[in-house]
Amino acid sequence: MTTPTPEDRFSFGLWTFGWQAQDQFGSATRPAVDTVEAVHRLRELGVWGMTLHDDDLFPFGSDETERRRAVDRLRGALDDTGLVIPMITTNLFSHPVFKDGGFTSNDRAVRRFALRKVLRNIDLAAELGAQTFVMWGGREGSEYDAAKDVQAALARYREAIDLLCEYVIDQGYDLRFALEPKPNEPRGDILLPTVGHALGFIATLEHPELVGVNPETGHEQMAGLNFTHGIAQALDAGKLFHIDLNGQRGVKFDQDLVFGHGDLQNAFSLVDLLEFGSPEGGAVYDGPRHFDYKPSRTEDATGVWESVRANMRMYLLLKERAAAFRADPEVQAALAEAKVAQLRETTLDDGEGYRGLLQDRTAFEEFDADAYFGDRGFGFVRLQQLALEHLMGAR
Amino acid sequence: MTTPTPEDRFSFGLWTFGWQAQDQFGSATRPAVDTVEAVHRLRELGVWGMTLHDDDLFPFGSDETERRRAVDRLRGALDDTGLVIPMITTNLFSHPVFKDGGFTSNDRAVRRFALRKVLRNIDLAAELGAQTFVMWGGREGSEYDAAKDVQAALARYREAIDLLCEYVIDQGYDLRFALEPKPNEPRGDILLPTVGHALGFIATLEHPELVGVNPETGHEQMAGLNFTHGIAQALDAGKLFHIDLNGQRGVKFDQDLVFGHGDLQNAFSLVDLLEFGSPEGGAVYDGPRHFDYKPSRTEDATGVWESVRANMRMYLLLKERAAAFRADPEVQAALAEAKVAQLRETTLDDGEGYRGLLQDRTAFEEFDADAYFGDRGFGFVRLQQLALEHLMGAR
Amino acid sequence: MTTPTPEDRFSFGLWTFGWQAQDQFGSATRPAVDTVEAVHRLRELGVWGMTLHDDDLFPFGSDETERRRAVDRLRGALDDTGLVIPMITTNLFSHPVFKDGGFTSNDRAVRRFALRKVLRNIDLAAELGAQTFVMWGGREGSEYDAAKDVQAALARYREAIDLLCEYVIDQGYDLRFALEPKPNEPRGDILLPTVGHALGFIATLEHPELVGVNPETGHEQMAGLNFTHGIAQALDAGKLFHIDLNGQRGVKFDQDLVFGHGDLQNAFSLVDLLEFGSPEGGAVYDGPRHFDYKPSRTEDATGVWESVRANMRMYLLLKERAAAFRADPEVQAALAEAKVAQLRETTLDDGEGYRGLLQDRTAFEEFDADAYFGDRGFGFVRLQQLALEHLMGAR
Amino acid sequence: MTTPTPEDRFSFGLWTFGWQAQDQFGSATRPAVDTVEAVHRLRELGVWGMTLHDDDLFPFGSDETERRRAVDRLRGALDDTGLVIPMITTNLFSHPVFKDGGFTSNDRAVRRFALRKVLRNIDLAAELGAQTFVMWGGREGSEYDAAKDVQAALARYREAIDLLCEYVIDQGYDLRFALEPKPNEPRGDILLPTVGHALGFIATLEHPELVGVNPETGHEQMAGLNFTHGIAQALDAGKLFHIDLNGQRGVKFDQDLVFGHGDLQNAFSLVDLLEFGSPEGGAVYDGPRHFDYKPSRTEDATGVWESVRANMRMYLLLKERAAAFRADPEVQAALAEAKVAQLRETTLDDGEGYRGLLQDRTAFEEFDADAYFGDRGFGFVRLQQLALEHLMGAR
Repeated sequence: MTTPTPEDRFSFGLWTFGWQAQDQFGSATRPAVDTVEAVHRLRELGVWGMTLHDDDLFPFGSDETERRRAVDRLRGALDDTGLVIPMITTNLFSHPVFKDGGFTSNDRAVRRFALRKVLRNIDLAAELGAQTFVMWGGREGSEYDAAKDVQAALARYREAIDLLCEYVIDQGYDLRFALEPKPNEPRGDILLPTVGHALGFIATLEHPELVGVNPETGHEQMAGLNFTHGIAQALDAGKLFHIDLNGQRGVKFDQDLVFGHGDLQNAFSLVDLLEFGSPEGGAVYDGPRHFDYKPSRTEDATGVWESVRANMRMYLLLKERAAAFRADPEVQAALAEAKVAQLRETTLDDGEGYRGLLQDRTAFEEFDADAYFGDRGFGFVRLQQLALEHLMGAR
Repeated sequence: MTTPTPEDRFSFGLWTFGWQAQDQFGSATRPAVDTVEAVHRLRELGVWGMTLHDDDLFPFGSDETERRRAVDRLRGALDDTGLVIPMITTNLFSHPVFKDGGFTSNDRAVRRFALRKVLRNIDLAAELGAQTFVMWGGREGSEYDAAKDVQAALARYREAIDLLCEYVIDQGYDLRFALEPKPNEPRGDILLPTVGHALGFIATLEHPELVGVNPETGHEQMAGLNFTHGIAQALDAGKLFHIDLNGQRGVKFDQDLVFGHGDLQNAFSLVDLLEFGSPEGGAVYDGPRHFDYKPSRTEDATGVWESVRANMRMYLLLKERAAAFRADPEVQAALAEAKVAQLRETTLDDGEGYRGLLQDRTAFEEFDADAYFGDRGFGFVRLQQLALEHLMGAR
Repeated sequence: MTTPTPEDRFSFGLWTFGWQAQDQFGSATRPAVDTVEAVHRLRELGVWGMTLHDDDLFPFGSDETERRRAVDRLRGALDDTGLVIPMITTNLFSHPVFKDGGFTSNDRAVRRFALRKVLRNIDLAAELGAQTFVMWGGREGSEYDAAKDVQAALARYREAIDLLCEYVIDQGYDLRFALEPKPNEPRGDILLPTVGHALGFIATLEHPELVGVNPETGHEQMAGLNFTHGIAQALDAGKLFHIDLNGQRGVKFDQDLVFGHGDLQNAFSLVDLLEFGSPEGGAVYDGPRHFDYKPSRTEDATGVWESVRANMRMYLLLKERAAAFRADPEVQAALAEAKVAQLRETTLDDGEGYRGLLQDRTAFEEFDADAYFGDRGFGFVRLQQLALEHLMGAR
Repeated sequence: MTTPTPEDRFSFGLWTFGWQAQDQFGSATRPAVDTVEAVHRLRELGVWGMTLHDDDLFPFGSDETERRRAVDRLRGALDDTGLVIPMITTNLFSHPVFKDGGFTSNDRAVRRFALRKVLRNIDLAAELGAQTFVMWGGREGSEYDAAKDVQAALARYREAIDLLCEYVIDQGYDLRFALEPKPNEPRGDILLPTVGHALGFIATLEHPELVGVNPETGHEQMAGLNFTHGIAQALDAGKLFHIDLNGQRGVKFDQDLVFGHGDLQNAFSLVDLLEFGSPEGGAVYDGPRHFDYKPSRTEDATGVWESVRANMRMYLLLKERAAAFRADPEVQAALAEAKVAQLRETTLDDGEGYRGLLQDRTAFEEFDADAYFGDRGFGFVRLQQLALEHLMGAR
């Protein structure tokens, strides 16, 4: 059960295993990875899909010929292996031209160029059969409050996405957009810093139905937020279009560790939610299980491919443990004691309304609030202990 | 200009200067403040409004007589002084009954009780003429992922707010709701942890037009977020119904310092935005300037009232400096250099659409991206320096 | 192996299970626990020791009679059960008199009072046979930089500890001091914020040999630091006199969760270090395994005692897994691949000195630094994966 | 007073204005700066000194000829301008060979190579007349707890520094070492993460008198610590050998902003401490005012040199304001009210000892602790308000 197969729908960014390990303080420690070889390697490991930025496949500024050669080479490898490209995204953050952002650069010419780069890439996404188009606005933001008119920036962000939606609709592409939030790094503050901000922003768009989120584990945890909670809210809003799984150890720089190698217990509850939904049912995510991580800079090629495997193995181990957790009668008893299911019951009786509630004396006048002192504990600690024991394979 | 007057519309929570300074690790250091005396004191200091939780005015569990006595006493003081009550909120977090939350407690009976407590308080809000009803769900959350079905919790949260909206509409009250986000404390993770999450959630409500946000400076900064950015997004969404001003020094426990005593430069850009709008115009906030802070536990009564004054003085000093910043021709030049205003221009020409953009060769084929290397700097550091010099009164 | 016995030397603070769950935002949810009953209960659960603040046993300001009665009652329960009191500490943070600290209050009279309170408590520690006297200076700090002359404060801190050491030496008490660092909360910034700062400060004392540290899991993690690293540095300095085990989920308010209920993988490496020392040997901690946590406010008495058990069970489960990790030949191979043991080898040959090193051409002139590009990976990710699989009981 | 002169002893790292703005997510946005031109430019701006890593001056792996050419060229520029080189440091973090650290790499050959690289650079430091040799161990650390035996690592760190001290003593160099702490980035956890940890470690060295700290503003603030407090503790320990001034906005990635462009009020108290010592006197720092920052990636050459100026102007403006703060009689009154100076008084009377204290009934038996309830406030909020008003030039 912990050997990955394409049925698991695991996908990896080309920029993940392909990262040459150059960071803010040091140069590359690994040579480039050949895309075609990588596709074959992924398939051997049981991977289902690969994702990419335009600039991962052909360098920024490539002419049509270079671009075509790279795309055709990739297409050949996909055909040979059966690997799919479920998601594509555009690099609007590496080149100097995007130093103040793409869609929200203060420089209008840059904004126009960014839109053209994305439009071109949407055609590629359609050509390669991707269903999701991710947008991480890593340079959309500022270091200094006076340097960015945030209301104007959001208006431009909206203008850009509205235009892209219109394009996709008109072209008849079967493609949806997923915004990827991040609180900071490389900018001091990034616009749409969390899943919540992206959800709030989507509600202001012209075609909200075409736009969802692509939350990344580490990005939410960099703001100290509970990733499973964020995913649950995205599901509640019907907006979990894609997901970026990785690992992060707290509020610090973006670590991009292997999934599960960061906050292990939060990874456990996440897999439980993604695979089995809320304890009592509820929306379940059915998209790719996509890993957006970086093999540590200390690793050579062997370590890179070990890290690819580690992501999938962690996911499958957690899935196995989550299933056992759900099936354990003692857990069921503890969940009942903790009234977890009672939260699925509506607070009002069917058809009761506020009028009915106001007439129910047991709800207020005769309600014994003081009985909750010293009694009516929820047993949450025991439930947590049971969860961790399952996570630890101790039951 | 730095002497507060009612025209400044400054308001304070009764629980702010009234805090007896009992904290997690120590007992009270100050006696209770009498409400009527406080109202008079506030008026002397130039304050315009006072806000309150039900339990600030009369203890939890008060009968109708006690409640009425307290309300009438307050009403008298308001009449004597002209102070107003622009906002009211409900305490759903202090009593043991709310140990797992109010609207989203796993215990259905608690949820029903919470709704009744709020409905009763809405009537009080209407009676006292409040226009805003704030809801801080400080206990709505969890410590352990297995203990809370977050999707169910959001459904119950929605059920509660939809019902309250219906009530307000039916009663014809001129009252709007404002959700107050907070990432954690007292719960390990709180639902609707940031302004963004609240905005996203509001979009799923039955009556979104009745519900906005009440962001608190420190609450956003506890997640490492830029408060001015959050306020700008709330304004962009038309959802800044109320605001809680205070001070916080980074990602740690909730400090509730005096406004401006935390992140000073962010306070500067905030006041600039609240008072003068985006650099090139845009939506401006016209609600109360409400302080939700705590006088430090080291202070006695003298220090408490000094701290009330300090909040207002900081605000007015920052307003003065923001005005000078805007008026400075060198700042105007630096803003132009930084192309800040260019972000107000739409990215597309009027009526251009993506078709026009695709035909504009200057936007892509002839665009010289490499010119941005070594050139076309934005001058953001100089702009920031100018902002700080105005903040420091050095220009 | 996961049933606690006194041989495990588990100890609990009287203030932990005894916490009535009053927090910054809410009142108590549980009645007080009787000390004698608690001692018996602890013994039934396999606990070895209990620890306490003076004010846990008898209220602040108790006269000699009340004090004696409480002590004698405790003594009786200890005699009945065999439970020991390995550590005692003084409450210098709850009463209003300590609002600006104890040893470092700006108010000299308070400093003198604090010293007297501690001296009295040292006598009690000696009477009850404690070997360690912990000092958590929770109120030693400030909110505002101008309010505290930190150099003066450190001088007063030193004066206090030097005096207490002198007292202990003169009385012939078999007692050592352990400073407990914390970065913030309840003060905005606390002096000696981390294990490192305490170690640095100890080096400036008159009797550094009598003073070590009492690191608390959550306190270090509130500063985003790796607790296992901090413990290793304390061991390296010979200063790990005591330890406070609990759980924390990142940089936020002090959560005081059950041990292991926070950062699980860091708890794993911690137990591995405490029980088995560095991978290749090295100093091992032999003091009490002391839990300083708080049963969640949602729990009633049943939950409180469940949480006591959970701390010990987590520790023993982690110990079991650490033993298996060490014994696994594949782990041994991965450790060798990662050259973990090579770090125990001195960098210089025996007697080589810098002169020898300078003459070794293989060390520099003939050293092939570029061979580290694309090769000589450390295999750290695979090692981490093996560690997590042992933690998860998956091997 | 705010025009920099060499008397201000401002120095800049060659890698600061020379940073080409390549970061984790993007390529360089600026061409390289010529060292000689830079030296002249710095002198024009009133700068006193420049500092450097070996690899800033000549590429890693340069042969003796290249190295000499670069050194001689620099020497010529220094002679022409009068600029000095007060500090030198070694790059043990950029090249792949250091991927697991230098002094504490698990790979012994790397450790030997690192020592040789540093020894060679110490000779250069002596040749160029530097007084301080900084060591930032940016790669000394780990991502995974099992991958690094921290006790062994600290032993190797100690071995390295002891050897370097021996070398400096034997060569008769007038050079002291300064360790630069950082909590994380680029490693997941870095050894000696804070000023405190470095101070604690120094106490374990063979030649502690030769080794101090080089704290960097942002590095401490990345752990949520108060930088001014850290500097005060370093001064208290006699270990502030050098300082790295810059700006950081909270717990996140290393921002390296201009000094004062981060936490402004902490910058104010820092300059106050560096320039004027503790409020009542105490040790004062007399080393270089060294800026270790990065001009934002959005800036071109004009912006780079503007940012150099901004660092110095911020420092001088803060110094001016700190002087006014100290001189203000109202501030003096508030400091007295807050008993700030009383902390300089010893807690015990001269020659009193614990025996005397135990006999002083006014210290305990007759001490009225309850008088601190509702009274004896410290007036800290007012003092803070005065400090901020001086910072804002509002008095």
